[in-house]
Amino acid sequence: MAVYTDINEVELKAFLAEYDTGALLSFKGIAEGVENSNFLLHTDKGALILTLYEKRVEKGDLPFFLGLMHHLSDKGLSCPLPLPRKDGALLGELAGRPAALISFLEGMWLRKPEAVHCRAVGEAAAALHLAGEGFELTRRNALDLPGWQSLWAKARARADEVSPGLQAEIDAELAHLVTCWPQHLPEGVIHADLFPDNVFFLGDAVSGLIDFYFACNDAYAYDLSICLNAWCFEKDGSYNITKGKAMIEGYLSVRSLSEAEVAALPVLCRGSALRFLLTRLYDWLTTPAGALVVKKDPLEYLRKLRFHQAVITAGEYGWPQ
Amino acid sequence: MAVYTDINEVELKAFLAEYDTGALLSFKGIAEGVENSNFLLHTDKGALILTLYEKRVEKGDLPFFLGLMHHLSDKGLSCPLPLPRKDGALLGELAGRPAALISFLEGMWLRKPEAVHCRAVGEAAAALHLAGEGFELTRRNALDLPGWQSLWAKARARADEVSPGLQAEIDAELAHLVTCWPQHLPEGVIHADLFPDNVFFLGDAVSGLIDFYFACNDAYAYDLSICLNAWCFEKDGSYNITKGKAMIEGYLSVRSLSEAEVAALPVLCRGSALRFLLTRLYDWLTTPAGALVVKKDPLEYLRKLRFHQAVITAGEYGWPQ
Repeated sequence: MAVYTDINEVELKAFLAEYDTGALLSFKGIAEGVENSNFLLHTDKGALILTLYEKRVEKGDLPFFLGLMHHLSDKGLSCPLPLPRKDGALLGELAGRPAALISFLEGMWLRKPEAVHCRAVGEAAAALHLAGEGFELTRRNALDLPGWQSLWAKARARADEVSPGLQAEIDAELAHLVTCWPQHLPEGVIHADLFPDNVFFLGDAVSGLIDFYFACNDAYAYDLSICLNAWCFEKDGSYNITKGKAMIEGYLSVRSLSEAEVAALPVLCRGSALRFLLTRLYDWLTTPAGALVVKKDPLEYLRKLRFHQAVITAGEYGWPQ
Repeated sequence: MAVYTDINEVELKAFLAEYDTGALLSFKGIAEGVENSNFLLHTDKGALILTLYEKRVEKGDLPFFLGLMHHLSDKGLSCPLPLPRKDGALLGELAGRPAALISFLEGMWLRKPEAVHCRAVGEAAAALHLAGEGFELTRRNALDLPGWQSLWAKARARADEVSPGLQAEIDAELAHLVTCWPQHLPEGVIHADLFPDNVFFLGDAVSGLIDFYFACNDAYAYDLSICLNAWCFEKDGSYNITKGKAMIEGYLSVRSLSEAEVAALPVLCRGSALRFLLTRLYDWLTTPAGALVVKKDPLEYLRKLRFHQAVITAGEYGWPQ
């Protein structure tokens, strides 16, 4: 749920005057995205999304994110497309915040995805990896291993408030990852947050990917490991190998993986589970009571991390043997 | 901001199968309404609102609310229209809650209304009063004087936590209103919550009224007093007589008021200011920290109440002399 900033009709009209959108018919704050404020606009030319970038998004990163959406869309990937203003800029300002108008994608994110959807997400992730080739801007992954260490330094002292023993467990995991984090895997643009709420479906087919505000340059196989974490566990914490197999097969139908990528998958899954454990833990400890966001349970990712710690080969995720 | 209940695509499809809506293309939780959960749906036949009635709405009142929208719409008032299911019912069930599909009204509510809009709201309120005639169902105003007394009994002990002296001030006001609350004024169906967020505009014209979930049978002039409270004060607490005059003129252009109604306006304004003071005070004291709603300031209505206490005649609101 995210409408951090309300807007009034006077400033909205001034903002829209810089675009060629047609007449505004309605705007509604929508419960979508956790970093920004989003509004669904109807104009007499169709529907649009208005995004106000709140302070968690670095303004300097916006040209990367908005340019990437244009690049991916040009390559045939279905994703929201920032509309240029009359002066050509992709970014304006509204209510004191950087703001963009973005095409509206029909489709629904699935609260109860099944294996057929996991296969489609695997395909879409691989298609995104191929489509990102040739994009001229780059962005370091701010949530890479050094990023996790910085985050951990801010949360470590209070980790045991959330779960006794958590401090020692994360200390040990980080020490392990420092020694064996894979280097030199094939890399390029990754989505880095391809959770169910960022993948729209019409029927069983992907209609588009959204929310590129964690996109960055990193190992392709790391992006796949994020998807396995986000899509292939059941509510009871168990790994669903049918979903994992479908996702991996979907991915491989579009892009093949090297032996090094396959071998690295278990440690990449540990890393991505730790990444979400740490950001959720940090948010858990720092989000003020009364904030208009639902805090996500960090321990969901502790359970996933423990699963990955026991995995030895990618076959346990459903890799074709 | 209100999406208290999330829904999944499986239950939504089962719900929609009872209607003839066309294919579902998207649904988004929207930040609109404070009592219910609302979703904006796109189908290949157009946009719809899906409302899930949360526990603050009495299920027994829903036939009144939904029937009233149909009645008003039949009389030519622009308001959302509940869609009948294939079996004719206006109400279904979704996620364990009563739920209705309602036509989508284009238009925007104004964060910064001006006098021209106040005039249009006066006209719309009077038009609603006339259109409600002949509606066969009735609903007592649960927030009438006895209702305020019940609410006050639940908040009284802690009122001074919000503002020192508040307990004695509300005690005195209630005692005053008991002695002089007007009886036998012309009455019928009133909206009872015609705040800016419940009136949509396209340009400077009203495009529709929404949110009939406080509608009831009560004095028409009491409804006008709610509008004066809701629209004609500035952020600094001052009464804007230009707006009040415009609203009253707008109302009178559609429906005339009796001498008794005009004479009662100051006490009606005191009552409606107290009504919102009391519900906000109760919510302030009982809404848990961390709830996904913005608590509204009760003291805004204490300041309005004090203004009305000093008013002697309707001329001070802008009544034509």
